[in-house]
Amino acid sequence: MSVISSESKTTISLDADLVTLVNVFKVKPENQQQLVDMLVDATEETMGKLPGFISANIHKSLDGEWVTNYAQWKSVEDFRGIFQNPEAREHMPKIGAIAESSPVLYEVCYTKNA
Amino acid sequence: MSVISSESKTTISLDADLVTLVNVFKVKPENQQQLVDMLVDATEETMGKLPGFISANIHKSLDGEWVTNYAQWKSVEDFRGIFQNPEAREHMPKIGAIAESSPVLYEVCYTKNA
Repeated sequence: MSVISSESKTTISLDADLVTLVNVFKVKPENQQQLVDMLVDATEETMGKLPGFISANIHKSLDGEWVTNYAQWKSVEDFRGIFQNPEAREHMPKIGAIAESSPVLYEVCYTKNA
Repeated sequence: MSVISSESKTTISLDADLVTLVNVFKVKPENQQQLVDMLVDATEETMGKLPGFISANIHKSLDGEWVTNYAQWKSVEDFRGIFQNPEAREHMPKIGAIAESSPVLYEVCYTKNA
């Protein structure tokens, strides 16, 4: 089921069987909104339709210099599938032209809520 | 209300009134678990009890070289309160001795779920 962004809710928990991508993009403040728009387009048009996609959560820094995508995939193999997908690969050079990305795969090891 | 870690659940959504801290720590793989333990202790003993704390979510990278804390605070002022709190400040040099941190404050601007 795909829901519209405003109703979408991502959860972080220890027991979820998934891999987390934290992709931190360094960007010039004057390009921050453009980068956000590109990442939203890439998610809507391509990434969000690929096998194993669970969620994407795009954040813009208050200082204007960073954009971070907190994304969840069912498995490492599903995440790696992005790089084999021609449509997904099309988005990458455009994004790379205005931002430097640092994608890292994680597992959740602790959560605490107030 | 404070819940135990295994039942804790963090949500990411557009309509939440909060500020998100994404704090990425670069660490040697042989120190990754020690860093996780230090961050868990700091959260349990101090950060999680401070005013405005909403959540902390500690992630370790699959390659061993990174630890990321995805944390939520009610406001920027509440987050900044950490640095005024003597007990919270006590944790920082120990953590800084084994890891280099890059804390950045964000707002959520887009979420999509499968």
